[in-house]
Amino acid sequence: MANVVVTGGAGFVGSRLARELLAAGSLGLAGGAAAPLSRVTLIDRSPPPADLAGADVIFHLAAAVSAECEADFDLGMRANLRATESLFAACRALATNPVVVFSSSLAVFGGSAEHPLPAVVDDHTLPNPQSSYGTQKFIGEQLLADYTRKGFLRGRAVRLMTVTVRPGRPNAAASGFFSSIIREPLAGRRAVCPVGAQTEVALMSPARAIDGLLCAATSSDEAWGGRTAVTLPALTTTVADMIAALERAARPGAGALIDWVPDPQVARLVASWPARVRARRAERLGLAPDPDFGSIIGMHLAESR
Amino acid sequence: MANVVVTGGAGFVGSRLARELLAAGSLGLAGGAAAPLSRVTLIDRSPPPADLAGADVIFHLAAAVSAECEADFDLGMRANLRATESLFAACRALATNPVVVFSSSLAVFGGSAEHPLPAVVDDHTLPNPQSSYGTQKFIGEQLLADYTRKGFLRGRAVRLMTVTVRPGRPNAAASGFFSSIIREPLAGRRAVCPVGAQTEVALMSPARAIDGLLCAATSSDEAWGGRTAVTLPALTTTVADMIAALERAARPGAGALIDWVPDPQVARLVASWPARVRARRAERLGLAPDPDFGSIIGMHLAESR
Repeated sequence: MANVVVTGGAGFVGSRLARELLAAGSLGLAGGAAAPLSRVTLIDRSPPPADLAGADVIFHLAAAVSAECEADFDLGMRANLRATESLFAACRALATNPVVVFSSSLAVFGGSAEHPLPAVVDDHTLPNPQSSYGTQKFIGEQLLADYTRKGFLRGRAVRLMTVTVRPGRPNAAASGFFSSIIREPLAGRRAVCPVGAQTEVALMSPARAIDGLLCAATSSDEAWGGRTAVTLPALTTTVADMIAALERAARPGAGALIDWVPDPQVARLVASWPARVRARRAERLGLAPDPDFGSIIGMHLAESR
Repeated sequence: MANVVVTGGAGFVGSRLARELLAAGSLGLAGGAAAPLSRVTLIDRSPPPADLAGADVIFHLAAAVSAECEADFDLGMRANLRATESLFAACRALATNPVVVFSSSLAVFGGSAEHPLPAVVDDHTLPNPQSSYGTQKFIGEQLLADYTRKGFLRGRAVRLMTVTVRPGRPNAAASGFFSSIIREPLAGRRAVCPVGAQTEVALMSPARAIDGLLCAATSSDEAWGGRTAVTLPALTTTVADMIAALERAARPGAGALIDWVPDPQVARLVASWPARVRARRAERLGLAPDPDFGSIIGMHLAESR
């Protein structure tokens, strides 16, 4: 029997992960045999419980997002750093060595004068976060690796790409517009694009994000290959190519529903993230990028029907 | 006028730094003109003060050391992670953008199956700490860089090598024996060496450590070159070569005062640290390694007379 906890369980990725787990009805942890789920607990907007009630696996997805953390430094430190520390300490206190899957982000990468971003980042690239969100995610990776080394838990960190197309209302992530410029015109509504059309981005669909999280929970230690974070595969595309795919999927002229309103703060954050990724560890685990942006739109349409 | 605070000010490096500051009587901060010291405050074994009383520069040297943090995980999290966070928050609350010099460590580096340690580490090497101490120091570097990016303080992180010859009594650092195998035989006392004679190590004298800390405080932003940590220059030597230098400085046979008692825990920590360093940013700042171990022993003898 597997007892699953998902922090951020009411969110976009968390609720989808929970639905997939419930549909599957079982989970094979860290290379073990598939075990039926005994309980799936979703936690959101609350401190981690002191007693995680015998959880076998904790998916830690809860976070304050990128633009929020730039606007409110203390929020990010509290929600991303201190809550993560507290959660790991609570997992240690279980004394059952639970599997802890931590959703990190490509925002751990960034370029500066003394460490320019390479043309392609890979599992060996020096993280050099240029945002508080990226810093806090990278610190979470380091804490998780040390808790794992000490035998307090079995940590698995995955770096998610920009996940799109997100359903529902926009959130405060700087990357949110990568979803709204598709989702809103598909529904006949206007959307704002704060960056230029030639902006490159490393994307993944919600389905590929869930694949990565489940792979992290289920791979054996040998297959996972170490305590450092695994960078997930990305589809590299441009805003212009996304809009071309939108027009093919919807109708010519759908792109005219996009208002181009530059936002220097969002553009700075987005430009600090890498657009090209070589995800060798993830590929060895059988994970793959989305083939093209048209297929991501197709999945979004099929799911929002 | 410059108001200086040194955390860990009662320690080996902190007290020496304070003596050098008091002897100089002035300090030119971050490329500015030399200003007379108005106050030097030494803090030790206490939480950071909520009000740092208008400090212009804080040298944050206080830390629980490597073997202590392996033996007592909670001590390291409290003394190295939470106290550092609290200190940076207190510096931010000053709202005077003080210079904060953070003593990090070569223990941020380490090798694992997925990220083997390169033969020579440099400013671009991916830190991959294999100890709680190294993890906590690396997290401190990340926090300092983000506080600096936000304009809350002017952070300067330097990665110290193993500092030897330390005077006085041994501490709980795994690297402590690199001092005791020299200091104790020079005084006619026995010492224990927990690693093999061919063990390589990256060393610096106390004088070169102080040079690095003062350079961090006084360099202009342009000269310092970025928010990431500067790895200080190292002398690479072996335990056997250190003992040969000891015998030249003392008398033939002094090495016979060393008892070889392997300690796997200490050997594991020491072996996880790099022995060869290319410190390009530090060299551009005018910092240099000690020329040889004989000169380090010479300085120790001159100072302990």
